[in-house]
Amino acid sequence: MKRTAGLTGLAGAVLLLATTPARAAVSEETAFVFNTFAFLVSGFLVMWMAAGFAMLESGLVRTKNTAAICLKNIALYSVAGIMYYVVGYNLMYVDVVKYFGSLSFLYNTSDAEIALLAAEEATPELIAAVTGNGYSVMSDWFFQMVFVATAASIVSGTLAERIKFWPFMIFVVILTGVLYPIQGSWTWGQGWLTQMGFSDFAGSTIVHSVGGWAALVGAIILGPRKGKYGADGSVHPMPGANLPLATLGTFILWLGWFGFNGGSQLALGSAADASAMAIVYVNTNLAAAGGVVAAIFLTQIVYKKIDLTMALNGAIAGLVAITAGPDLQNHFMSIVIGAIGGGLVVFAIPLLDKLKIDDVVGAVSAHLVAGIWGTLAVGIFGGADLVVQVVGIVAIGAFMVVTSAIVWMALKFSTGLRVDEEAEEMGLDKAELGMEAYPEFGHGSQSL
Amino acid sequence: MKRTAGLTGLAGAVLLLATTPARAAVSEETAFVFNTFAFLVSGFLVMWMAAGFAMLESGLVRTKNTAAICLKNIALYSVAGIMYYVVGYNLMYVDVVKYFGSLSFLYNTSDAEIALLAAEEATPELIAAVTGNGYSVMSDWFFQMVFVATAASIVSGTLAERIKFWPFMIFVVILTGVLYPIQGSWTWGQGWLTQMGFSDFAGSTIVHSVGGWAALVGAIILGPRKGKYGADGSVHPMPGANLPLATLGTFILWLGWFGFNGGSQLALGSAADASAMAIVYVNTNLAAAGGVVAAIFLTQIVYKKIDLTMALNGAIAGLVAITAGPDLQNHFMSIVIGAIGGGLVVFAIPLLDKLKIDDVVGAVSAHLVAGIWGTLAVGIFGGADLVVQVVGIVAIGAFMVVTSAIVWMALKFSTGLRVDEEAEEMGLDKAELGMEAYPEFGHGSQSL
Amino acid sequence: MKRTAGLTGLAGAVLLLATTPARAAVSEETAFVFNTFAFLVSGFLVMWMAAGFAMLESGLVRTKNTAAICLKNIALYSVAGIMYYVVGYNLMYVDVVKYFGSLSFLYNTSDAEIALLAAEEATPELIAAVTGNGYSVMSDWFFQMVFVATAASIVSGTLAERIKFWPFMIFVVILTGVLYPIQGSWTWGQGWLTQMGFSDFAGSTIVHSVGGWAALVGAIILGPRKGKYGADGSVHPMPGANLPLATLGTFILWLGWFGFNGGSQLALGSAADASAMAIVYVNTNLAAAGGVVAAIFLTQIVYKKIDLTMALNGAIAGLVAITAGPDLQNHFMSIVIGAIGGGLVVFAIPLLDKLKIDDVVGAVSAHLVAGIWGTLAVGIFGGADLVVQVVGIVAIGAFMVVTSAIVWMALKFSTGLRVDEEAEEMGLDKAELGMEAYPEFGHGSQSL
Repeated sequence: MKRTAGLTGLAGAVLLLATTPARAAVSEETAFVFNTFAFLVSGFLVMWMAAGFAMLESGLVRTKNTAAICLKNIALYSVAGIMYYVVGYNLMYVDVVKYFGSLSFLYNTSDAEIALLAAEEATPELIAAVTGNGYSVMSDWFFQMVFVATAASIVSGTLAERIKFWPFMIFVVILTGVLYPIQGSWTWGQGWLTQMGFSDFAGSTIVHSVGGWAALVGAIILGPRKGKYGADGSVHPMPGANLPLATLGTFILWLGWFGFNGGSQLALGSAADASAMAIVYVNTNLAAAGGVVAAIFLTQIVYKKIDLTMALNGAIAGLVAITAGPDLQNHFMSIVIGAIGGGLVVFAIPLLDKLKIDDVVGAVSAHLVAGIWGTLAVGIFGGADLVVQVVGIVAIGAFMVVTSAIVWMALKFSTGLRVDEEAEEMGLDKAELGMEAYPEFGHGSQSL
Repeated sequence: MKRTAGLTGLAGAVLLLATTPARAAVSEETAFVFNTFAFLVSGFLVMWMAAGFAMLESGLVRTKNTAAICLKNIALYSVAGIMYYVVGYNLMYVDVVKYFGSLSFLYNTSDAEIALLAAEEATPELIAAVTGNGYSVMSDWFFQMVFVATAASIVSGTLAERIKFWPFMIFVVILTGVLYPIQGSWTWGQGWLTQMGFSDFAGSTIVHSVGGWAALVGAIILGPRKGKYGADGSVHPMPGANLPLATLGTFILWLGWFGFNGGSQLALGSAADASAMAIVYVNTNLAAAGGVVAAIFLTQIVYKKIDLTMALNGAIAGLVAITAGPDLQNHFMSIVIGAIGGGLVVFAIPLLDKLKIDDVVGAVSAHLVAGIWGTLAVGIFGGADLVVQVVGIVAIGAFMVVTSAIVWMALKFSTGLRVDEEAEEMGLDKAELGMEAYPEFGHGSQSL
Repeated sequence: MKRTAGLTGLAGAVLLLATTPARAAVSEETAFVFNTFAFLVSGFLVMWMAAGFAMLESGLVRTKNTAAICLKNIALYSVAGIMYYVVGYNLMYVDVVKYFGSLSFLYNTSDAEIALLAAEEATPELIAAVTGNGYSVMSDWFFQMVFVATAASIVSGTLAERIKFWPFMIFVVILTGVLYPIQGSWTWGQGWLTQMGFSDFAGSTIVHSVGGWAALVGAIILGPRKGKYGADGSVHPMPGANLPLATLGTFILWLGWFGFNGGSQLALGSAADASAMAIVYVNTNLAAAGGVVAAIFLTQIVYKKIDLTMALNGAIAGLVAITAGPDLQNHFMSIVIGAIGGGLVVFAIPLLDKLKIDDVVGAVSAHLVAGIWGTLAVGIFGGADLVVQVVGIVAIGAFMVVTSAIVWMALKFSTGLRVDEEAEEMGLDKAELGMEAYPEFGHGSQSL
């Protein structure tokens, strides 16, 4: 008796409480547990997005580069976590103002928490010292860490099928340890963009566009895959090898995004926070749905066929678009924001091809273009100052374009960025890993 | 020190609390947070079932229809969410009695929650106004929404490999916006079936049989795949192309079902609710296990070979069977209920083939047959009135058969339901999407 | 405004609470709900690891044995759950001291919980009777059950591609119903190892090495796959058929491990428990990352190519290694412990091949070797007595080697353990299941 059972349960609880009217609020320690657990649950959902990117990208590359993209994805998630522990978090949140002046390395549990854990008895004083912070410091670290990994995941897809493993990993080290934290500190580290009023709830710009800019600059410097663009302006399609995996990856991202956006409420210790988190979940889902529907309609109309990969990128674009402002109380507008995001992707992907910028999985369109749109949308629908939103987009964009161009160029002229022609032809799996992702599956119509 | 560490932690908490004896209960605001968070966590698990259906169906269709079934799955989840927001939820829960009389569109956060979120200070009055409802209204919406998506997911698998995309999507619009909510209102909307005492805890009938009926009627009207049944009564096997994906899909469904059944307790804000949810988790797992074991034994005995897809459908049938009454305190009986569900599938699947009803993935057997069984089982083992259970099964079945037959027939004679022979031969991926799901994998022994 | 929004929320909560200073602690009923919910959430994450093993193993076997390994994985998870319900849990936790003396079968909800659920009104006495236990008893059962399933999952991978289905399942019945619970009772059932001071937080030894020992003994008795080792000492590589699935499996395991280790705090009902769980999450992630990075560097240095499957096993080994002591406050040391685990795998896998012990997926190296290392590490870095740690490792190892040798040998000489040569050549999918996992995919370079 679904609904009835629940109401009975609630009624029981309420009845009980009615006899103790003073007991209305959440205690400070209870709020601490809620806030901490919300970070952990939201964080594991966002961690799961690393698997989503791995599957999406595995599905959209060709078989000969599949093992290599799997390797890059698990490696980048690992490196992001280590770098954000060693330096990134402190750079972003602790030494925000003076950056390198007093940068401290490693990030550890608070003294208060260590004291509480060591104590024989949890005295009210020890508990108060811990709960005053609102949440366990390492739960916050965990949650912020999975965000930086997301930014790095975006880059790997765009540059797939021709970038060398080690230079790519060096870029990831710098992106996750230095570049992401510096720009992140401007807003989430209470820096100058926050002081100006820039609003980016869960990171349309700060995470998704940042990854997108790094990917875009990398794609330009790295150049397109061999044979992708003909001298006559033709575009040679190089279809993904395993579309169910790409579909799985998109569903994983969608699921993870509830943690990404919902967890960015950063608290669950009050009725207001719980209510806000519920609203965020609903908007996140509706925006993704809007992105899918828009991409399906548009590809049917424009191309007369419905493109599955466009539908998948439509979902992602809808999710990216709502990320800057998923706390909208007008849920219908979330559908609109997501649909515009999904629609933008349908046009951005061929536009990049026209510019001969080779983005293997469409990540620049889904994360950068939709990220910009979503950040503007907070100015249009969400009450933020549109000019300030533009300032934030431009400032972060300029920073990422300049710094990632420097890093990509430095890698290009030192280690080299790109595998040689023979290796690209053979595929990175055999060339760099000495293995095949699907050694037993034969060669079908599109095998190269 | 696993167990010890935990006990120490608990002992510490209890020790602390022992000095404040009055502090025994859950506060109203704390209960609100628990209830809301339980809806969100359970809801994201059920959302994940959409990926489970996508993988199960991707694995069980042939390669030439794989991209199309991926597209249908992500599209139907999107459309279900939008339709349930635009009209379905209100139809099911808000305007229950008078249906179309005063149907309101769109579903929004409560005024009390908006006021709390807008307030500078969370006053006791504002909090009380919100927490009186027991949970955040949008968290409930989110949880109910993923249920309607599940019902729609069931349909796509049965009708795979020959239904046109757009008519299928129109059916999904009507199913999720109108049909599901109307019959759902009879029980969960506190309608006449609840008043009679019909008991369906998490939806063996209301979700799974509803999807199963729609699929069954659709399969009959649509007809079998070309070549599936010989004129001589022979059945031509058309094996699924990717069984690990089907296995993954089943594991995803199993995981998601903890949210499906556990979340249907609809509350977590008291010891009784937490205890009830734990019991539901255990029964859900045991029933699925019983379904697997029964299907394995039966296929070994009947066919002398163990059929993996039967084992997978056994798990699903076990889960469906326990869904109507997962709150059983006799856990052993859950194994029995699940095993009977798993056993039924082993006989229902060939029976449908004998009737020349072509259910590509076995969804009618797993969701409709096991759903009926599970709903009856609540009458047999769970204390509900068996006659009323039959009334509910028949009433909802009759409603779904009639209404979905009308919709399917209307589609058949307007847009047409079925792709033409050439497109079916070529596969929906090339015909409707212009792409291949696995363009590089060659053609093996079963390629058609 | 991510961080700001959160801080506002927290500030609001704190402000509110500041006016009610006595309200500092978690109430006993609230702690009960937290503890119970933490078991359920952690438990569903660990359940998800069953899917992780299924995907990892599906990806690492050859196509002709893929459906069979999928079947084994879903069957063993089912059987583990049933056996642990019927006898295992009671053997491990309830009748610890006298084992078979007063062994009771089946495990049920407590009388206090049944009384509370049946009551019309939740009186303080009824609530107190339930909450005194700290958590709902079935939530604990659920959490412990998924651990035994993990131990069984480890075995299936090592023995893949040549073991018969039914004898394997009989071994699983004994492992999960008897062997695992008996040795588990020594530590987690408050038996003699706990009394000696043996420390294994979440089961590096008790779960992972136990599975690893059973797998190792099984691999020796079963013998290597036909053609794996040449008479001249050569090793014939038999590469996995689907590396993206193996990658997915690893990501699933990584995600599930947050529940595995985090949930092993066994409580969430106080600030100290929440803080401890957050620390465990962070260490778990850092150790896995360390394992990946170490495996990548080492394979690059030793083999001049980066091996994806080594990187995946590096992640798993890092996770196994931190499992005995994930409550370290020095997070940097987690990276080191994980990296050593990942490094050990790179050397252990070829060493086993040199010994002609055929471990199809590397599970002995990742779970047994890294499990021993992790258990020792608690003595080296974590404050446990190193001698006692060795005693625990040796005692549990000796027990598992002897008992599983007896069971494997008994099966070998009764039912037989191994499929005949023809069946092995043909593949278990056709021989035992009569189906193909990928019937449409052709035969590539490595097809056998």
